[in-house]
Amino acid sequence: MFNLALLALAAALVYCSRSTSVVVAAAGFALVGYVATDYLIPRVGPSFIKIGLFGKDLSKPGRPVLPECIGAVSATVYLFTMFFCIPCIFYPYLVSTSGGGQRDSSVERAGISSAIFPHSRLSEYLSSVLCLESTILLGIADDLFDIRWRHKFFLPAVAAIPLLAVYYIDFGVTSVLVPGFMQQRLGSITSIDLGALYYVYMASMAIFCPNSINILAGVNGLEVGQSVVLAVLALLNDALYLALGTDATKSSHRFSMVLIIPFLGVSLALFKWNKWPASVFVGDTYCYFAGMVFAVVGIQGHFAKTMLLLFLPQIANFVYSVPQLFNLVFCPRHRLPKFNEKDGLLYPSRADLLENPPKALFVPVLRLLASLRLIDLEVDSKTGGIVSCSNMTVINLMLVWFGPMREDKLCNLILAFQFAIGVAAIVLRHCIGSLLFGHDNLWTIK
Amino acid sequence: MFNLALLALAAALVYCSRSTSVVVAAAGFALVGYVATDYLIPRVGPSFIKIGLFGKDLSKPGRPVLPECIGAVSATVYLFTMFFCIPCIFYPYLVSTSGGGQRDSSVERAGISSAIFPHSRLSEYLSSVLCLESTILLGIADDLFDIRWRHKFFLPAVAAIPLLAVYYIDFGVTSVLVPGFMQQRLGSITSIDLGALYYVYMASMAIFCPNSINILAGVNGLEVGQSVVLAVLALLNDALYLALGTDATKSSHRFSMVLIIPFLGVSLALFKWNKWPASVFVGDTYCYFAGMVFAVVGIQGHFAKTMLLLFLPQIANFVYSVPQLFNLVFCPRHRLPKFNEKDGLLYPSRADLLENPPKALFVPVLRLLASLRLIDLEVDSKTGGIVSCSNMTVINLMLVWFGPMREDKLCNLILAFQFAIGVAAIVLRHCIGSLLFGHDNLWTIK
Repeated sequence: MFNLALLALAAALVYCSRSTSVVVAAAGFALVGYVATDYLIPRVGPSFIKIGLFGKDLSKPGRPVLPECIGAVSATVYLFTMFFCIPCIFYPYLVSTSGGGQRDSSVERAGISSAIFPHSRLSEYLSSVLCLESTILLGIADDLFDIRWRHKFFLPAVAAIPLLAVYYIDFGVTSVLVPGFMQQRLGSITSIDLGALYYVYMASMAIFCPNSINILAGVNGLEVGQSVVLAVLALLNDALYLALGTDATKSSHRFSMVLIIPFLGVSLALFKWNKWPASVFVGDTYCYFAGMVFAVVGIQGHFAKTMLLLFLPQIANFVYSVPQLFNLVFCPRHRLPKFNEKDGLLYPSRADLLENPPKALFVPVLRLLASLRLIDLEVDSKTGGIVSCSNMTVINLMLVWFGPMREDKLCNLILAFQFAIGVAAIVLRHCIGSLLFGHDNLWTIK
Repeated sequence: MFNLALLALAAALVYCSRSTSVVVAAAGFALVGYVATDYLIPRVGPSFIKIGLFGKDLSKPGRPVLPECIGAVSATVYLFTMFFCIPCIFYPYLVSTSGGGQRDSSVERAGISSAIFPHSRLSEYLSSVLCLESTILLGIADDLFDIRWRHKFFLPAVAAIPLLAVYYIDFGVTSVLVPGFMQQRLGSITSIDLGALYYVYMASMAIFCPNSINILAGVNGLEVGQSVVLAVLALLNDALYLALGTDATKSSHRFSMVLIIPFLGVSLALFKWNKWPASVFVGDTYCYFAGMVFAVVGIQGHFAKTMLLLFLPQIANFVYSVPQLFNLVFCPRHRLPKFNEKDGLLYPSRADLLENPPKALFVPVLRLLASLRLIDLEVDSKTGGIVSCSNMTVINLMLVWFGPMREDKLCNLILAFQFAIGVAAIVLRHCIGSLLFGHDNLWTIK
């Protein structure tokens, strides 16, 4: 009933969008995406379990079996939502032909405002969706075949090929602005052409975003929750530009909103089923897909650096994990918090450093981290030797800082932190951007 | 070693294509696709079996277990080949920008001939690849979850949505030519606007082509073999237009070749592993994907009707199957030819009509078909009642006509028939086209 009301609202929004803005159409399609995902997830779950796509929830009494890889449903719904979006957001720019396969001049209509996109955006839009679809395809391959870590790390870069290829022939800007204080030293040049390096930079972005979401995971609702927070933050930033920006930046950020709003719709439906106590797992497919949405938006809209700022918590989690990822400190196979069946709370999981001592050089670093309360270090009271330490993930760190807690509280705490850091990052970015470059693309210092 | 030589040739072709034609680049990428597919198939087979994607080859002694759904490998290689194609075939039409996300005027270079595509083709190209990728995604879902027949029949239409959506905003021609002899009766109008019906027609094409390949299947190498023959026939037709056609039709058929040549490459590699005695099965994914390649080419190039002519053997197989598909005659669960372990030959499989008698009205039709030698009817010599008939598929019909034979001979025989019919269809199409419309788009009657 609630879903039917949402669908009616969606129809109204899409209808209104012709005279208002593409963003309204995107909101309509987001509702459709929400309803479709919410309808499908409970219905396809058993089929996923039947073909072997399931996992055990280790942080629940009795370790129930849940369908795995359900994020593929959200992702597929998102794709088809974006397909149906095409006629609505590009509608008024029809092209007429005289038949036989050739195209005449495009029909330019009067009074086209922010309601639709310029036709030239079409190939950008298509290559974005193509990139996301490739990400989903490779994500499903990963969920099915359990590809090795060192291979799957680079999968998103492969999926980004259509994006980079179209960028190359269609846009081709490979220069970055030089900060004001550097301009004098470099002989007053205002921008540097990175050439091929720019593509390396974009591919890195495509690798980083999906993997960083995949690494900050393991608690019910956290993968989807952090993606929802990222989406809200990105939309906040877009809204700032739509309100205050120039026409050129407005177009980029409207594009960003059209991609992100439907993503928010399908993600919220997934969150409903994946939040504590989870009925489904999202799988790598969703993590890759979600990360790629932000990478695509950042690359196509030319605000990859701002987008990276929103990923600060994920970057922090990655940097914090480096000692274990690169085996400076012993890394157990699983670093998820430990579930205690008696009180139903999660406790930080620990790495046994007696049998697997850390590199000698790294021992002082561990002691420093412990004195900064960045890890919990267990020391033998007689010998002073290191016995064990809490595993180095942001999830465990929260438990070290705030004590054992239930899974849903832990997830909410991390999401709240992420949101606060993100808002601070957006504010700082526009202040510091003005200082570094003499101007910010949101406003100019007079 | 052979594959390395092919790769070197591919590099040379792609390099040369800048000064010759996109078709040469497509040939280069076809070689890359062949080598990559041929490399991957034997290596991923065991992983497919491990996750439950396998089937038994019923027409071999001992019914060996083979990996199923390997066509997904060809299809994925094809996609990534097409991504890498983008910079090569659109290269000279770069667009410059002044940074900040906005686009300046496009840089038109002198001397651009048939070496590259006009930039306006880009969205057509992207929507084609998007449609194929969606087909593959839905095909994989079908192979994984065994979707019901009545659902999966319409899956390709869903995958065609991006194609139709982009067609709608980018091309929008929905009129068809009226044949000359009809023009006078209709008051001298030369074309009729089908409007929304034109989209129904395109969606039907997208449903028909994939399913028709999926129906003519069940013999080692036949799914891929018929797709290879279709590709060769389509390329023959394209070559005719490139040699004799007008500039407008040349562009459409060059587009067709760019899509089909790499498809031929990955298909030939799959054929190598799927031909008798098969080491792998292709799965529904490949059948859908292959059919959709032809549907896309026909729709985008505006020669859907000519394309349908090439599908005559598949149409014949479908029409011939109708009595069993619609249960006018009993349809057993499997209609594959029967394998005789003793002589290693295939025999026509039969439907038992004693226990499941056909509809009374249809009995005379069965007798007529039998007298035309279109089925093999077993009649009780005493009562004159019908005992059984050969199953109504082109595969069984061949065995009825030419007697039992080995699986590879049967496949080759069907492919030879298909090729002969296709060549005849192309010739007739251009002769009859001239008669019906007063002119043909290949040439004009003076």
